[in-house]
Amino acid sequence: MTRDAILLTPGPLTTTLRTKLAMLKDWGSWDADFNAITARLRARLLDIVDGHDSHVVVPLQGSGTFSVEAAVATLVPRDGHVLVPDNGAYCKRAGKLTQMMGRKATVLPCAENQPISAAAVDERLQADASITHVVLIHCETGTGVENPLAEVAAVCRRHGKGLIVDAMSSFAALPIDARALQFDALIAASGKCLEGVPGMGFVFIRKAVLDACAGNSQSLAMDLHDQHVYMGKTGQWRFTPPTHVMAALDEAVAQFVEEGGQPARLQRYTDNCRTLVEGMTKLGFRPFLKAEVQAPIIVTFHAPARPNYDFKRFYEGAKQRGFILYPGKLTEVDTFRVGCIGAIGRHEMQQAVNAVAETLQEMGIPDGTPAP
Amino acid sequence: MTRDAILLTPGPLTTTLRTKLAMLKDWGSWDADFNAITARLRARLLDIVDGHDSHVVVPLQGSGTFSVEAAVATLVPRDGHVLVPDNGAYCKRAGKLTQMMGRKATVLPCAENQPISAAAVDERLQADASITHVVLIHCETGTGVENPLAEVAAVCRRHGKGLIVDAMSSFAALPIDARALQFDALIAASGKCLEGVPGMGFVFIRKAVLDACAGNSQSLAMDLHDQHVYMGKTGQWRFTPPTHVMAALDEAVAQFVEEGGQPARLQRYTDNCRTLVEGMTKLGFRPFLKAEVQAPIIVTFHAPARPNYDFKRFYEGAKQRGFILYPGKLTEVDTFRVGCIGAIGRHEMQQAVNAVAETLQEMGIPDGTPAP
Repeated sequence: MTRDAILLTPGPLTTTLRTKLAMLKDWGSWDADFNAITARLRARLLDIVDGHDSHVVVPLQGSGTFSVEAAVATLVPRDGHVLVPDNGAYCKRAGKLTQMMGRKATVLPCAENQPISAAAVDERLQADASITHVVLIHCETGTGVENPLAEVAAVCRRHGKGLIVDAMSSFAALPIDARALQFDALIAASGKCLEGVPGMGFVFIRKAVLDACAGNSQSLAMDLHDQHVYMGKTGQWRFTPPTHVMAALDEAVAQFVEEGGQPARLQRYTDNCRTLVEGMTKLGFRPFLKAEVQAPIIVTFHAPARPNYDFKRFYEGAKQRGFILYPGKLTEVDTFRVGCIGAIGRHEMQQAVNAVAETLQEMGIPDGTPAP
Repeated sequence: MTRDAILLTPGPLTTTLRTKLAMLKDWGSWDADFNAITARLRARLLDIVDGHDSHVVVPLQGSGTFSVEAAVATLVPRDGHVLVPDNGAYCKRAGKLTQMMGRKATVLPCAENQPISAAAVDERLQADASITHVVLIHCETGTGVENPLAEVAAVCRRHGKGLIVDAMSSFAALPIDARALQFDALIAASGKCLEGVPGMGFVFIRKAVLDACAGNSQSLAMDLHDQHVYMGKTGQWRFTPPTHVMAALDEAVAQFVEEGGQPARLQRYTDNCRTLVEGMTKLGFRPFLKAEVQAPIIVTFHAPARPNYDFKRFYEGAKQRGFILYPGKLTEVDTFRVGCIGAIGRHEMQQAVNAVAETLQEMGIPDGTPAP
C-alpha cells in the first residue's frame, strides 16, 4: 500500500500536508525569524484559553509527559503535597512522577468508567489541610472519559489550593477559558488536538504564582520558571528547540484559527466521534463508557466476545485497509481504542468503520458484540 | 531572499532535503513500522561506535541537554559524587544540572582556551576518593576546543571511576571506539553531526553498569534505565516519541553511512574548517584557539577591533547574504562563532567567507584584525 494510513490514535495523529510541509526548512534557533515563530505561537496559544491577562505560556522540548513532570516540578514546592484523583493510566502516571521527584503525592482512587467526583476531591481537601495542589487529568486518554474541570477548579479555588491540569488530549478541542476557571498550570502538547507533530509541550502558568516558582525545580532542563525568564529576556529557548516541530505547530495553529478555533474543532471531533460510535454500535461493538461521560477524543470499545478475535490480527486487518487503531489500556477488561482526533472528518471515520466491518468478516467474526 | 540560509551554527544545522522530506509522513508510535525505525536506528548508532558488545543505546525525547541530565540522573547514584572538569559553558551546564538534581558535583576549573588536562583529572581523583564519576565534554562548543577523551577515559579506568561523556558536538565526526575506550555513558543528539533535525538525544550506556542504574533517576521522563527496559520488552518508547524527528534521523543516518561514515564526515568537516579558518585569516580574523586544539566543529573568532564593529549588524549582513552565524559564548572576550558542520562543503564555507568579506566592506571595516 502506498497511501499513508490514517492514524486513529490519540497523538501522534494524522496532520495535514500543509503542516508537514512547514518542516522543509532549517531554522537557526538563535535567529530573529525563529524567535518570531516562538513569540507568535505563545501569543496564539494564550488566545485559545483567553489567558493573556492571567497566564503566561512556556513551551518545553520533549513529549507531553515531560511537560507534566516539568509543571509539577516547577509549580509544587519541595515540601508541597499533591492530590491526584485517579481514574486512569495518565492519572497514575502523574502520581508516579510526582512521587519520584520527591514531592509528597496522595492518589485518590476513583472508578475508571466514571468522571472524577468533584465532591470526593472537596472531601479530601477538607480532610487533609497539608495538600497544596491538585493534579487533574482533563480527558483521561486511558479510557476517553472527560473529567469535570470547572467543578474541580471551583473546589480548589474555594480551598485555596493550586490546580495543575493535564489537558493533553483536550486542549484546543474542549472549551477552556482562563477568565472563567482558575488554574495554576495547564499542560498540553504539539501533537494532539492542535494537530501538529509530536516533539514539544507547553504549560500555561498563572502569573500570580509565577514568582513563587523560582527555585522549585530540581531539574535544569525542566525548570519552566527559568525557561520563562530566559525567553522573556532573549526571545529564545534556553536549550536547542525542536525547530521543525515548532514550524509545523505554527502552521497547524494557523489552520486551527482558519477552521474557526476551538468551537469548530470540537464540532468536527464530535461529528467524528458520533460517526464512529454509531457505526461501531451497528456492528455490535459496545463503548466502554456511557455516552454522557465520553469525551469526543478517543473511544474505548470492548473487544468482541469471540474465540477467534485477536487484537493483533484485528489491528493488522484495519491497517491493511489504511487505518491505524490503538490498543486498550485497561488491565481488567479486554478493550481497544479508536481516536477521533487529527486532520480527518466524518468520511474518514465512516471509512474506518467500513474497514473494521471488513476485517471482522475476514476474521470470521459475525459482529462486535462483547461479553455480556 | 527566497533561498534558505545556510546555518553555520552548531545545531540546528543545515540538513539535506532528503532528510527533511522524510518528515512528510505521519507514523503511529505504537505501530510495527515505526518500531522498526527505532530498532534500526539503535543498531546503526551502535555501529558508529562499534559498541554492540559493550553498550546499549537509549533514545530520549528533548534537546541534547535533556539527555545529558538523564544520563547523570540514571548513571550516578543518589549518593554519588561527580567531577566536572570545566573549560567552557557546556561543562558549567553539566555541573549545574548535576547539583540541581541533588547529586554532589565538584567543578574543576580549567583554562578556557586549552583542552582539559588528563593529569589534572588524575590528580583530583587521587586526592578525593569520594568521587564516583567524571563528566567530560568531548568538544566544548562554547569555544570549539577538543578535550582529550582517550586520556581521560584511561585515567577514569585506572581509578575505577565511571565516565560520562557529553559527545553532543563530536559524535559521528570525531572517532569514538567503544572497544578501545571505556565509558559508562556517552551522549549525543539528532541535530548535530549526524545532520538530522533537533528534537531528540540518545545515550550509550555500558552494559556492565546498566543493572545498577535501576532506581537511580528521580525523574520519570528522564529515566533511561526504565526507557531501555520498556523498549526491550515492547520495541516502543515509553512516552510519545518525536516520530517525524526520528524518521528524519533515520534518513540522515542512511546518508551518513552512504557518505562513508565517521571518517568521511570528519574529512568533510576538517575541509570545511580549514577553508573557513584560512579564508577568515586572510581577512585578518584570528581564531580564539590554537590550531592544534581546535576541533573541526565550530570555530570561535575574536571580534574585529574596530569601533564600527557591532555583532548584530555583522550578523545581519551575513544573513542577508544567506549565512547564519553564531554569537560568542565567552564572557571576557568579544567573539563570534562559525560552525563547520551540517550538510555543506568547502564551497559553502568559501561563500560564507566571501559574504563576511562583503559585510565588513559594507560596514566600513577594512579587516577582521582583533585587538592585540
